[in-house]
Amino acid sequence: MSSSLIPDAAPTGNLEISVSRAELLRELTAAQSVVERKTTIPILSNFLFEANGETLTITATDLDQSLRTSCPAKVKKAGACTIPARKLYDYIKLLPEGEISIKLMDNHWVQIRAGRSNTKMVGMARANFPQVPEIPGGGLFKISAPALRNMISKTIFAISSEESRYTLNGALLVLKAESMAMVATDGHRLAHIEKHGETLEGVTGEKRTLIPRKALAELQSLLSNTDAEFIDFADDEQTLFFKVGGRVLTSRKLTGQFPNYEAVLPRDNTKFVIVRSEDLMGCIQRVAQFADERSGAIKMRLEQNELKLSAQSTDAGESEDIIETPYNYDPLVVGFNSSYLVDFLKATGVTGEVRLEFKDAQSAGQMRPEDGNEDVKYRYILMPMRI
Amino acid sequence: MSSSLIPDAAPTGNLEISVSRAELLRELTAAQSVVERKTTIPILSNFLFEANGETLTITATDLDQSLRTSCPAKVKKAGACTIPARKLYDYIKLLPEGEISIKLMDNHWVQIRAGRSNTKMVGMARANFPQVPEIPGGGLFKISAPALRNMISKTIFAISSEESRYTLNGALLVLKAESMAMVATDGHRLAHIEKHGETLEGVTGEKRTLIPRKALAELQSLLSNTDAEFIDFADDEQTLFFKVGGRVLTSRKLTGQFPNYEAVLPRDNTKFVIVRSEDLMGCIQRVAQFADERSGAIKMRLEQNELKLSAQSTDAGESEDIIETPYNYDPLVVGFNSSYLVDFLKATGVTGEVRLEFKDAQSAGQMRPEDGNEDVKYRYILMPMRI
Repeated sequence: MSSSLIPDAAPTGNLEISVSRAELLRELTAAQSVVERKTTIPILSNFLFEANGETLTITATDLDQSLRTSCPAKVKKAGACTIPARKLYDYIKLLPEGEISIKLMDNHWVQIRAGRSNTKMVGMARANFPQVPEIPGGGLFKISAPALRNMISKTIFAISSEESRYTLNGALLVLKAESMAMVATDGHRLAHIEKHGETLEGVTGEKRTLIPRKALAELQSLLSNTDAEFIDFADDEQTLFFKVGGRVLTSRKLTGQFPNYEAVLPRDNTKFVIVRSEDLMGCIQRVAQFADERSGAIKMRLEQNELKLSAQSTDAGESEDIIETPYNYDPLVVGFNSSYLVDFLKATGVTGEVRLEFKDAQSAGQMRPEDGNEDVKYRYILMPMRI
Repeated sequence: MSSSLIPDAAPTGNLEISVSRAELLRELTAAQSVVERKTTIPILSNFLFEANGETLTITATDLDQSLRTSCPAKVKKAGACTIPARKLYDYIKLLPEGEISIKLMDNHWVQIRAGRSNTKMVGMARANFPQVPEIPGGGLFKISAPALRNMISKTIFAISSEESRYTLNGALLVLKAESMAMVATDGHRLAHIEKHGETLEGVTGEKRTLIPRKALAELQSLLSNTDAEFIDFADDEQTLFFKVGGRVLTSRKLTGQFPNYEAVLPRDNTKFVIVRSEDLMGCIQRVAQFADERSGAIKMRLEQNELKLSAQSTDAGESEDIIETPYNYDPLVVGFNSSYLVDFLKATGVTGEVRLEFKDAQSAGQMRPEDGNEDVKYRYILMPMRI
């Protein structure tokens, strides 16, 4: 007799289960995003189903990442099988609510029955499914789920999309005993968020972890669909592990050194204006239509109590917009990539006010939400463009 | 002094107007869908603006179609200009509510000002804008707007998308003194809707008009955005004219003979079942996932009090679904393209019941909504597939 306290050996029998459509669909929805649409390795298009005790465990992997999740099931025969992931997900979505029975047949065929619907899909041998890293039993850090979710949404867009810039293809998570931070950059702009007032047990000194963009995106989606207050985080030499509720996401680590971002954080951007985010967003979007299509560059001109945005291109014409706002420093003209500005405003939800801080036309500008939040410090640094 | 009763000569001066953003945007939204995204003739990417009296008239054309619409404006200087359509539409969308002033400058530049926003776009000479057909003064038919809209939505999806099948690239409108009908076919299926109880003044005998798909789609969109009870319809040798509220759509006529569709309307499909549309839709969609990808063919088997749907393919597996429903004729097996079935169910809104009528496995099947509507007769004929 297997006890639920002792992990069972991987089941290999002719799986036969019955499961609620709603519960199955919820887990398939979570797992299917890890499955690559176009893979040259057929087994990676499949889910691994393992049934044992009173649980169906579902695993998906693209070799870089894996997701393992489970739902309650009536297990008539313990066992395992693989099922085409996309096909199964689409099919279960189309079934009405109710019990679904799933049964492994000969030659890796899997039968799925619900009401008067009867379907057989062609699976593959369970033995072909790659081994997925197991989350370690110890060395787990508890991280606040809402705080992590917020940090990801405030930085993920700044990650480089150039595959070649390997160490920029992720965000750096910095855990300290009483704070955590996340930072991402593509070399042209950098998003940095730091949260104080977190007590992180087990962290001494500083723990720095580079999390690949794909894993962050999965994590973001897992965090959006959980009530869990905390997640568990661990790593070993090759792998990151995130446990969100009953779901375990693993990700291969990125190797290499994240750039020394502290060096680029501006220290003397003493000229600033504060504007309503919505006003700034409107102005940027209008003016950006007339920016050079390739560079997206728009010009910001700060003068006595006004911020003027402008752009021009030979094809489209020219456009300017003015926001009236207190400004009493020396006039300043500086160019930025309009889509970088828009990215930041979107990340802040285009609400409230935003503070723009400058040194001069050659130095990086900094944007911050003017929200009076002392615990969460969010800043966005942009390199200027020649215009 | 020009009187509003006498048409003004086309204005050529340096247009200068002021117009409400909401009213302008409403008309640009209607007109922009006629503008081709990718055209090799630059002037066709532009709107023609003509200001006179108290009206701004906006024209768009792709040479096959044109749309002419207008809104109230404060005309400081009567005149005309052309403005890049997409750019203008996007820009006006991004402006806040308020008055917008538009002014033609030198070298076909057009200045657009609103609040503290100031933009100049590069237009083209008004003289380059093609002549658009004028709606005739007489010979107009009044057609019920909601009835026409319904007829289009029930047939447009059956129009052939093969450019080479020229006379099938539209739907046939058949007007009689007390009924109207619309029919579309791609050679594999045919949608036919007929509405009785309409009194169409000025129609003697039968008036048959082939309306191109693009014009039907524009008309559908115009009809969705009007309170008008009736539209005006007219044609001359080359052109169709539709007047929906204050907007005039013209379309070049399709030449050639629409097929003799009356010949294919089934007369002795005496075997039938009635099923809930939603049930049928669910079954078809599930089973169709396992159909051959190219043909989309699924099998319908009618037996004592049940309709069984099934499909199979070497890649995906096999699937069947059963609907219990009264059926007492001889058993029958017939194949259909699943996406054609889905198209019809979508057109009926997937509500209520649908009646499937058959003769045998070699003859066309017919589908009809089982809605007891005597005034509107809607039928859909599908050629069977070998399966």
